[in-house]
Amino acid sequence: MELLSPYLEKIELEIVQLGFPETPENLYQPLSYFLNIGGKRIRPILTLIGAEMFDEITPEAVDVAVGIELFHNFTLLHDDIMDNAPLRRNFQTVHEKWNTSTAILSGDVLFVKAMEKILKGQSNQLSQLFLTTAKEVCEGQQMDMNFETQLNVSISEYIEMIRLKTSVLLGCALQCGAIISGANEEDQEKLYQLGTNIGIAFQLQDDHLDTFGLSPKVGKSIGGDILSNKKTFLYLKALELASESQKQQFEHLLSEHNPEIKIAQTVALFNELNVQHISQEKIEFYFQKGISYLNEIQLPEERKQALKAVIDFLYHRNF
Amino acid sequence: MELLSPYLEKIELEIVQLGFPETPENLYQPLSYFLNIGGKRIRPILTLIGAEMFDEITPEAVDVAVGIELFHNFTLLHDDIMDNAPLRRNFQTVHEKWNTSTAILSGDVLFVKAMEKILKGQSNQLSQLFLTTAKEVCEGQQMDMNFETQLNVSISEYIEMIRLKTSVLLGCALQCGAIISGANEEDQEKLYQLGTNIGIAFQLQDDHLDTFGLSPKVGKSIGGDILSNKKTFLYLKALELASESQKQQFEHLLSEHNPEIKIAQTVALFNELNVQHISQEKIEFYFQKGISYLNEIQLPEERKQALKAVIDFLYHRNF
Repeated sequence: MELLSPYLEKIELEIVQLGFPETPENLYQPLSYFLNIGGKRIRPILTLIGAEMFDEITPEAVDVAVGIELFHNFTLLHDDIMDNAPLRRNFQTVHEKWNTSTAILSGDVLFVKAMEKILKGQSNQLSQLFLTTAKEVCEGQQMDMNFETQLNVSISEYIEMIRLKTSVLLGCALQCGAIISGANEEDQEKLYQLGTNIGIAFQLQDDHLDTFGLSPKVGKSIGGDILSNKKTFLYLKALELASESQKQQFEHLLSEHNPEIKIAQTVALFNELNVQHISQEKIEFYFQKGISYLNEIQLPEERKQALKAVIDFLYHRNF
Repeated sequence: MELLSPYLEKIELEIVQLGFPETPENLYQPLSYFLNIGGKRIRPILTLIGAEMFDEITPEAVDVAVGIELFHNFTLLHDDIMDNAPLRRNFQTVHEKWNTSTAILSGDVLFVKAMEKILKGQSNQLSQLFLTTAKEVCEGQQMDMNFETQLNVSISEYIEMIRLKTSVLLGCALQCGAIISGANEEDQEKLYQLGTNIGIAFQLQDDHLDTFGLSPKVGKSIGGDILSNKKTFLYLKALELASESQKQQFEHLLSEHNPEIKIAQTVALFNELNVQHISQEKIEFYFQKGISYLNEIQLPEERKQALKAVIDFLYHRNF
């Protein structure tokens, strides 16, 4: 294998330098762990060798080689779940050391990382925006899952979670359209901000309607979030404002088994604390913020009509 | 929503025309199912609207819009597993209707499809090759899982499964290097074929060593495939050649609980049927076939040295 070590070194160096973000920790740590337990790196070595047969090894070749290795590791992460494998290369598999959800989601974000590497040499603004957004969506889902067991979730953490999980993809969707049509960067950015803020409003409204909506229209039963002890904006805000005795009542309601009592008493507490009103204001804040970006775009009114129609549709759909 | 229906129609038309492959059925059917249970298609509508604000809607805009919708559905498929959700839009979720493995893998292949759509306007040979390969790897994994419960697996189906699951990525890795270095298409194709055939040989050898290797070097215990009733080349070939009475012995051994007896008697049957020898010939066949492509590439010998070293490394590693 001596002949092969220069190739291997290039690959390992690049993998070490990948630099995953620090948070969410339980999304990225499994990747560092899994990539460090090794493997023969046959695939990326083949890419470098294939490149060198016809020319010298360029940085693009190293990027693509590492992208292929990351993709391979993504498939292993998911295969190990499906095969119920406890060990990989004599180390615990990710779904064993963490859990299945972590292995699914870390795998997904590894696939995005792989695509970034594969496309680096030919990447353009659109694919970069999309892949960045894809990573953020995974991060948002991880935060959401973390919140299930996390004791103190702040309102700003919650907003950040829904921004990543739901909203950035709306911003990305709008901006992609603008990119394809050759809009200038400022207008693109405004559309992205519009989409993201409307997205946050949309998600807050979803939470709101789950508790205060009129059941049949929402398409799911009222109070579902309350029954599953979900930390929504309403719940977090209520906790923030609650007196010690109200906090104890919330605490007590977490283990209430009768669904009707649980919903009724939680809603009663929400009303005492005025969170319905605060939530509506917050929704309105993000909608208005979103719409302000639309007003800043210098286009004739009729060009904005369709976008306004979607926003109306989203905003009024169940109020 | 009347103002929005022209956008929605464009999206739905494109989604209907996606045309997933027919096989593996349980990889692609869940996708048709999941995409058909609807959703508001807000994200792709936003892309079309964003595009139309600054220009007209091009086919590229529709591709990217649908790519974003596919990505969104991929995240839903995986989120539903993590959230343990029984229903999505009042329909059974994929992991409920099929199972978790199907939902993971169908999701993965949907992500690949999404990338194809997103990159269509800027796709080049390298990204197309990579994405095609990524889909094939998912298909191979699905076939492998299907084989666990499939009664009759032919040798050619088995070879096709390992070609997809393991080998095409080796071919892809080599070809990617050649593409980056500007090799001509014929040489690229030869490297792809070389990688794929060496990959098949490599996987067959892996099966072979699991039964006939020398334990410590392989990194896993001898006989693991036999104990888990895995349908390897050895097993399928043995069944193909077995007399009625030998078939009954195999049948009987499937439920043998004593691991030593199970391994010893299976290996004894393998030896009666000469499958060790047949398997070695098959490995040799694919290795030679792979190497023949290398001989056809018109390059000075020293340019082929590194590739030969990897092949040697793979081939001789435990014999």
